Amino acid sequence: MIVMKTVNVGLIGFGTVGSGLAAALFSQQERIMRRSGLRICLTKIAARSLVALPPEFSVATLTKDADEVIHDPNINILVELIGGIEPAKSYILKAIAAGKHVVTANKALLSQHGKELFAAAAAKGVEIGFEGSVGGGIPLIKALKEGLAANKILSVMGILNGTANYILTRMTEEKLPFAEALKEAQRLGFAEADPTYDVEGIDTAHKLAILMSIAYGMNIAPQQIATEGISKIKPVDIEFAREFGCRIKLLAVSRSVGESVEARVHPTMVPESHLLASISGASNAVEFCGDLCGSVLLSGQGAGRLPTGSAVAADVIDIARNISCRCTCRVPALSYLPEYIIPRPVTPLSDLRCPCYLRITALDKPGVLAKIAAILSRYGISIESVIQKGRKESEPVAVVILTHTAIEAAVTVALREIDSLDTVAAPTVRIRMLGEEE
Amino acid sequence: MIVMKTVNVGLIGFGTVGSGLAAALFSQQERIMRRSGLRICLTKIAARSLVALPPEFSVATLTKDADEVIHDPNINILVELIGGIEPAKSYILKAIAAGKHVVTANKALLSQHGKELFAAAAAKGVEIGFEGSVGGGIPLIKALKEGLAANKILSVMGILNGTANYILTRMTEEKLPFAEALKEAQRLGFAEADPTYDVEGIDTAHKLAILMSIAYGMNIAPQQIATEGISKIKPVDIEFAREFGCRIKLLAVSRSVGESVEARVHPTMVPESHLLASISGASNAVEFCGDLCGSVLLSGQGAGRLPTGSAVAADVIDIARNISCRCTCRVPALSYLPEYIIPRPVTPLSDLRCPCYLRITALDKPGVLAKIAAILSRYGISIESVIQKGRKESEPVAVVILTHTAIEAAVTVALREIDSLDTVAAPTVRIRMLGEEE
Repeated sequence: MIVMKTVNVGLIGFGTVGSGLAAALFSQQERIMRRSGLRICLTKIAARSLVALPPEFSVATLTKDADEVIHDPNINILVELIGGIEPAKSYILKAIAAGKHVVTANKALLSQHGKELFAAAAAKGVEIGFEGSVGGGIPLIKALKEGLAANKILSVMGILNGTANYILTRMTEEKLPFAEALKEAQRLGFAEADPTYDVEGIDTAHKLAILMSIAYGMNIAPQQIATEGISKIKPVDIEFAREFGCRIKLLAVSRSVGESVEARVHPTMVPESHLLASISGASNAVEFCGDLCGSVLLSGQGAGRLPTGSAVAADVIDIARNISCRCTCRVPALSYLPEYIIPRPVTPLSDLRCPCYLRITALDKPGVLAKIAAILSRYGISIESVIQKGRKESEPVAVVILTHTAIEAAVTVALREIDSLDTVAAPTVRIRMLGEEE
Repeated sequence: MIVMKTVNVGLIGFGTVGSGLAAALFSQQERIMRRSGLRICLTKIAARSLVALPPEFSVATLTKDADEVIHDPNINILVELIGGIEPAKSYILKAIAAGKHVVTANKALLSQHGKELFAAAAAKGVEIGFEGSVGGGIPLIKALKEGLAANKILSVMGILNGTANYILTRMTEEKLPFAEALKEAQRLGFAEADPTYDVEGIDTAHKLAILMSIAYGMNIAPQQIATEGISKIKPVDIEFAREFGCRIKLLAVSRSVGESVEARVHPTMVPESHLLASISGASNAVEFCGDLCGSVLLSGQGAGRLPTGSAVAADVIDIARNISCRCTCRVPALSYLPEYIIPRPVTPLSDLRCPCYLRITALDKPGVLAKIAAILSRYGISIESVIQKGRKESEPVAVVILTHTAIEAAVTVALREIDSLDTVAAPTVRIRMLGEEE
């Protein structure tokens, strides 16, 4: 005889992901039972407005009062899917205080207030699951925490924002300017009315901070991550990238180097031979490099109702198994035990060493290239190749230079000097390249 | 005060992967402790010959007698890394009977005798971990079992043999014939002296059987998987594939269709736009498609000392956590509870519907193409495009046809008829294509 245990779930937030989670839990209840031996029941949902629930959700009650869900004594796991900092943070802290396990997909909250939330959860002996906070339906947090548990993680790199990747993909495939690709993404629902978080790399930095804390066992705030968005990328840069055998991607890059870590988000020239160059549209992908496993890449749908619902449901199932086995907190929230999560210095961007793409807008006069080359050489920056195209008397042309590996600070001062030349007509565009060794 | 628990591990088999596991457990003991709170000790190793252990392994004792490891009362987890069916199977059964948890990377054994082994383990309440059996260092079994636990898995597709993929990559990049690429792979240690298992798809079928049993909750024997290798692929096929925008990969493909499942391993034309086409060299990759998460792809190093050591170590850590929390068998070995693992009919290959590449070796005489087209049309096979190249009086030329989606059985009889034409000089080469919907 099989004794069925029931685990009750409460949900705050019934928007896109919330309704996806509800659909997942109801439609798959039988399958989850066959996999875990557990009946996982979504019993209470707090929503901003009291919509009519679809008939298959009828076992759940709907309320406008989040506290009613948080303080329901029958609920074991509270899922927070309203997003943003407040009131999400207060709800989660109240749920933890009430002894509930928490599942959330709130990357802004976790990346900025994770330390406080994880400490509260550890003190109370409850879990916080957050697979849905990075990479949508891709089970990358579990892979990193458990699948690569024997590895020292050397680097984490990825395409973590589907909106930005969609825009860059459309700019690449259709040669659209940024503004047009953005409008298209907004029309299709891939981009918000205010796209700043997505296109300026802020959302990507939040997600990188979460991954770094797990990968390296450290606390890091998103503000420590040098962040640059894609709004200044022009179709001409994408075209030149192609000529150099590269695609431009908004990449999150972090590396463990000695005691320090590197952490940055910026448009990046990725060689076409690298798998990350092939991640197109709204997809996400992350590459973990471990000292034993080598490079492991995971890709899939980085957002959306059902993919993110799948990730949130996986956390719910995981915690439900732990509740049923009385082994909650079996795996530490951030992979390392709290006492081993240490601060680590973040390398300033100025110390970064990587090859660069420089698009200089110069007047086509004799000796311009010689002057530019002389400045670069003076700062120890060596040139890998040069493309100069177009040739119109008295109109500026693009002089595109790929440098060998150079120090960021040196490139910055060299560019300041180059941009102050009489013969240079606009600020130089710099795009960092993924080096061969990466 | 932290109370440190110790979990002892015994190892049978000290070859490539065995020594990789030992290196992983010794070098990362401190890191694993910081992640799990557990001291995981490799205490006893059974090897064919009593080599001198490196100094860092000195806490382990070496023996030639596997039973000494199996019956050591202090050992909690037995790792089997000798490969092959016997004596590996007997060792594992003895270890289970002795109440030990087992970790193995033995795909041949699990795919052929898994049912018996998993039943024995379930009856005894011990675990069998087998992350290292498929995909080397890629944590794909954990991703499938736990990360996608809320999903109905619709398909599993992948490049699961690094040797075959290396050979095809070299044939593609360097236009080498099969035999030469194989020799190179053997020289570099990517291929065994007898490469049959790798190049004829047998190893891939073993791995697909393991993944299918987890994905669909079913028992399947490798013999139920239609299997065809890559030894008949010619550089000319790879060249034509390129003209059609495809790469040829040895693909494992399975799909859940109603009550049945499709299961096959064969050289496959993969459109370049598909991520699997970009998996090169000795890498492996698998794509799971779930009803919620959509497509999730994982790739990485499919074999090797440290990558496979990483996967085996992850299983050891996972089971050690369960031992320490008294929650062993927290997740069923094959994802579904044993009572829900049911037989499912496997669709015969003759029912397969997919587009095909056909390379017909024809004498360049008037009317040949018309005759071929007439035969195809008679069997309901419609042509998507034709390439005919080379033109030498009285010498056979290649007529290459891409068909639209066609039924395997119809193509088989049509080819029998085509190959019996006076004007056809050699058996036609058929390569199945990955359809658009996949």
